[in-house]
Amino acid sequence: MNSLKSVSLSGVDITGGFWKKRAEINRKTTIYRVYERFAQTGRFDALTLSWRAGMENKPHIFWDSDIAKWMEGAAYIIEKDGDERLEKLCDDMIDTIVKGQAPDGYFNSYFQTCEPDARFTRRVDHELYCCGHFVEAAVAYYNATGKRKLLDAMCRYVDLVEKVFKTEHSAPYFTPGHEEIELALVKLYHCTGEKRYLDLSKYFVDERGRHQESSYQQSSIYELQDQLPVREMTTAEGHAVRAGYLYSAMADIAREYADEEMLAACKRIFENISKKRMYITGGIGSSKIGEAFTLDYDLPNKTSYTETCAAISLAMFAHRMTSCELDSKYGDIFERVIYNAFPAGVSLDGDSFYYSDPMEISPRLAKRNVSRPTAQSEFPKLTRSKVFDCSCCPTNITRFTADMGEYIYFYDDNIVVVDQFIENNAEIGTDGKTTKIEMKTSYPENGTVNIKATGLNGKSLFIRIPGWCDKYSVKLSDKDASYVREKNGYLKIDSADEELFVTFEMEMPVVFVEADPRVEESAGKLAVMRGPVVYCSESVDNGSDIHGIYVDANNAEPEVVSDSEMLNTITVKGFRKTAPEGELYFNRAKASFTAEKIKLIPYYCMENRGESEMCVWLNVRTVK
Amino acid sequence: MNSLKSVSLSGVDITGGFWKKRAEINRKTTIYRVYERFAQTGRFDALTLSWRAGMENKPHIFWDSDIAKWMEGAAYIIEKDGDERLEKLCDDMIDTIVKGQAPDGYFNSYFQTCEPDARFTRRVDHELYCCGHFVEAAVAYYNATGKRKLLDAMCRYVDLVEKVFKTEHSAPYFTPGHEEIELALVKLYHCTGEKRYLDLSKYFVDERGRHQESSYQQSSIYELQDQLPVREMTTAEGHAVRAGYLYSAMADIAREYADEEMLAACKRIFENISKKRMYITGGIGSSKIGEAFTLDYDLPNKTSYTETCAAISLAMFAHRMTSCELDSKYGDIFERVIYNAFPAGVSLDGDSFYYSDPMEISPRLAKRNVSRPTAQSEFPKLTRSKVFDCSCCPTNITRFTADMGEYIYFYDDNIVVVDQFIENNAEIGTDGKTTKIEMKTSYPENGTVNIKATGLNGKSLFIRIPGWCDKYSVKLSDKDASYVREKNGYLKIDSADEELFVTFEMEMPVVFVEADPRVEESAGKLAVMRGPVVYCSESVDNGSDIHGIYVDANNAEPEVVSDSEMLNTITVKGFRKTAPEGELYFNRAKASFTAEKIKLIPYYCMENRGESEMCVWLNVRTVK
Repeated sequence: MNSLKSVSLSGVDITGGFWKKRAEINRKTTIYRVYERFAQTGRFDALTLSWRAGMENKPHIFWDSDIAKWMEGAAYIIEKDGDERLEKLCDDMIDTIVKGQAPDGYFNSYFQTCEPDARFTRRVDHELYCCGHFVEAAVAYYNATGKRKLLDAMCRYVDLVEKVFKTEHSAPYFTPGHEEIELALVKLYHCTGEKRYLDLSKYFVDERGRHQESSYQQSSIYELQDQLPVREMTTAEGHAVRAGYLYSAMADIAREYADEEMLAACKRIFENISKKRMYITGGIGSSKIGEAFTLDYDLPNKTSYTETCAAISLAMFAHRMTSCELDSKYGDIFERVIYNAFPAGVSLDGDSFYYSDPMEISPRLAKRNVSRPTAQSEFPKLTRSKVFDCSCCPTNITRFTADMGEYIYFYDDNIVVVDQFIENNAEIGTDGKTTKIEMKTSYPENGTVNIKATGLNGKSLFIRIPGWCDKYSVKLSDKDASYVREKNGYLKIDSADEELFVTFEMEMPVVFVEADPRVEESAGKLAVMRGPVVYCSESVDNGSDIHGIYVDANNAEPEVVSDSEMLNTITVKGFRKTAPEGELYFNRAKASFTAEKIKLIPYYCMENRGESEMCVWLNVRTVK
Repeated sequence: MNSLKSVSLSGVDITGGFWKKRAEINRKTTIYRVYERFAQTGRFDALTLSWRAGMENKPHIFWDSDIAKWMEGAAYIIEKDGDERLEKLCDDMIDTIVKGQAPDGYFNSYFQTCEPDARFTRRVDHELYCCGHFVEAAVAYYNATGKRKLLDAMCRYVDLVEKVFKTEHSAPYFTPGHEEIELALVKLYHCTGEKRYLDLSKYFVDERGRHQESSYQQSSIYELQDQLPVREMTTAEGHAVRAGYLYSAMADIAREYADEEMLAACKRIFENISKKRMYITGGIGSSKIGEAFTLDYDLPNKTSYTETCAAISLAMFAHRMTSCELDSKYGDIFERVIYNAFPAGVSLDGDSFYYSDPMEISPRLAKRNVSRPTAQSEFPKLTRSKVFDCSCCPTNITRFTADMGEYIYFYDDNIVVVDQFIENNAEIGTDGKTTKIEMKTSYPENGTVNIKATGLNGKSLFIRIPGWCDKYSVKLSDKDASYVREKNGYLKIDSADEELFVTFEMEMPVVFVEADPRVEESAGKLAVMRGPVVYCSESVDNGSDIHGIYVDANNAEPEVVSDSEMLNTITVKGFRKTAPEGELYFNRAKASFTAEKIKLIPYYCMENRGESEMCVWLNVRTVK
């Protein structure tokens, strides 16, 4: 088993390209817009614990997690770019939190004001989840500013959690209803060096599935990942965000304890997700009912739930898997998420959001149940929202975007791994043995990556060869370099030179992709990809009734067109099919086809130009 | 406007072929099995009005309709075949009903026992619906046996309904929550000659949509067809069975009153259904939510609701439309229903039923919401049931099957119309001017129809040319006959001969059918039809994962294979597609196809051989 380290955010400066642009929008727009909307809805006021019955803006059980994720995102921005206004906001919030913290360390703005006697009694009420997010915020803020106030407060809170749940067993349940604290505790351990926190994480992970736990009404043991002890799990089950956070923590535990049994469980689950339960965009969680995984190959397009937070949790899981086992399949899934399902969750201007990122949008179908309009709609929302009552996704987007630098590299004593192609300058490693890397790339706009590595000092340089890439070339400045193609899906380069220049050129053609035919709704259709980017068709470009569009992949003559707003667009030759006038069903010989140029945009750019039909999977017409 | 008459059941003997076989099963098995199950569940006992609080088998608001439809079916069987046991059962039930009838004519086994003070207070509680079904049973039983007891009792009941709803307006609502009595009253008028009953029907039809009526909680004005006065309607809306019964009554009213405005509304609605809101099987009602019509072209396959009773209601509507306007498009829809959506509702052995006849069945998806198993399933049932709590469909199947003879012909003073191809001997017309017809045909096993018409006496003989039929030939015994092809979609033959022999041969190839591309789930797929019969693929024949099967219509070489149980089956050359090992999404060039012979069975024969995947629409692979 590997035990690869990530490079902390302080060591990486993203200098250009896709994620620089997204980070700037995040820093200038998203973080402040979310702040304003949270302030308007009373979320920050709740920290004062001054709400009383009858007042407006009653605190909600997950508001603390919204605030904590916002603070975590702010911390990353402060760390990389400095931002006095953000830092002042955070300091004030932290003062408020610490002031409100109970003498025993407890802090929860809902329970302390609304139900002080109910603390730690209801497993499903997000208490440990909120605590976990505060811990992540505290670690991030300490790393960013060196200020320990929140970190120390959260250590006191976690000490209480350890006492109640592990030492004394005095709570009426054993493991969190919504996982999150497990992976937060691993971060707290790395930040403080306090092994107890890691052990508490392992405890929560390993106790899961071993007890008759209270759960949601109407749910099954699958919903909260209680169906089995985690080491026996083989499939991804239940609420997809909870599941993704648990699997991330499991991978952490596997790595930290060199726990092969745990890693084997992680690998089974990862295989199950990536080969049977994941949308082409990296979205997971097929069903709105329970926001959950369902069955192998059950990936409906019209009703795909695919929450943005679930996609993030899959990226987090994939990244941690690489740290346990260097295999490009993990980085491939990370990449699939960060160029598709994840950025789709926020508008291009950073100001509005999708909670759920569907594979298809049909404004017409929103009015489907005309005779029972109050029946809960199973169909996706048509337009992005400024903020949600349940606002987990916007802040998850903010913190994950601001933290992207942490996800580019891995290293240990012997290797430096370039896992993601993001323009940056980095210092990798510690103890004076740092390797410096400068990466220049417009990826995924094109497939050229220039890397300058200084001070490898005998370490091997690994560069991921993406799964989508069939053809590439490598040029090295060091003619004597020893050079292995495709070790676990990576290039492995050994050079004795102090400065090594690598030019990695991946051919990036437009590819027509099919789904396993067991994915029934996509069987017989095509998706268009270029590199890691999935494209989609919108009626804004192609006229209404986009399901009347057909593509002949053999004669589509795809063209990549540059675009000022979007990464790029693709045009393909296609057809508009029409039925004989007034015939609902007809002999196929009577269908007529008109040649039409079809414009496809990156999936992540969907629904940025007003209400529009959207689909990823295109109908096929093969002309003889 | 036409005002064509149907031939009453007494004038038609079905002598062979498809519907003779179904009628025999209906007579020997279905009618008795349904009786037994109704008896076991206390439905007949409820007629005694002896249920009291605390006893088992509490009467239900729609039990009377179950019994009435059973009696109606029994009456048709008694009329055509005689059946002393059925007649005795009916006589006993009628004695019980009449004994329990209130002095003012009211009879309802639920309200009289469970809520005597609530009669005629709740629009949605099926009271007038039950009354209507008793009226239909009474007319049928009188026609079958000449016994007036139930007929007279129901006249008294209807007199009360007229008084409460029309004369006095003393009920708190104006029109029935579940339509049915409207068309029953037309039958009662024809049986008794009492014009008041026809006027009451017209009253109920025309008052609809003119009042603020109570309705289901959470429903809209669309659900119970209250969105507009009926003459202004343009689309089929709401609960599909209710809608179909209303539209049938509207067509009756149009014909009886020569009401062109009403006919125009019927025509708009019929066009809307047949061109935009009907499955290829003739099934209607896309959504389980509200059991309802939804939107134009919203015809999802996996979640199609398509209740058997709704299909029957569409056939009834289509038949009545022909009586108003001789156009083959109406008979085409009738035919589409009776060879597909309707017979699919009962097993081949007549002993088990589908309430909802879906376009796709996937046993795997039934376990979809594994994390929230109590969430109401949106997917169809996997296997047929012996009886339902809500058992409208089995008795509707029984009565419609037994009454099929009434749907073959139309006539007036100038024409005799052969609308459906069912082997039979008939006497058409009255007053000594009867035309005798002997029809020999194995339709829809093949397209040959031999007709011997005796005594046309100057009447034109019309024979429907089905919409599916592109090529046919006609041979006449009378060389001097005047002969028009395709008048309103019919052959029109004028002969002076006392005996005319017509051989009508329709070529019946296997046809690959497409749907309007706005039917999104079927766009890009093919259905297989032969004549009016839709075929489907089952995993029982083709192995599991039937969505992995692809057909190239240009090279399918379809063969029709005779079958002892089913009408016939069709084999086509096709392919089984498989994904590259372990790849969920892949470059299309990597898919592999294995040639496979695909067996297709008539849709109506689906789910007769144990749990099986089923689909109507097949994936397409065009080989260059």
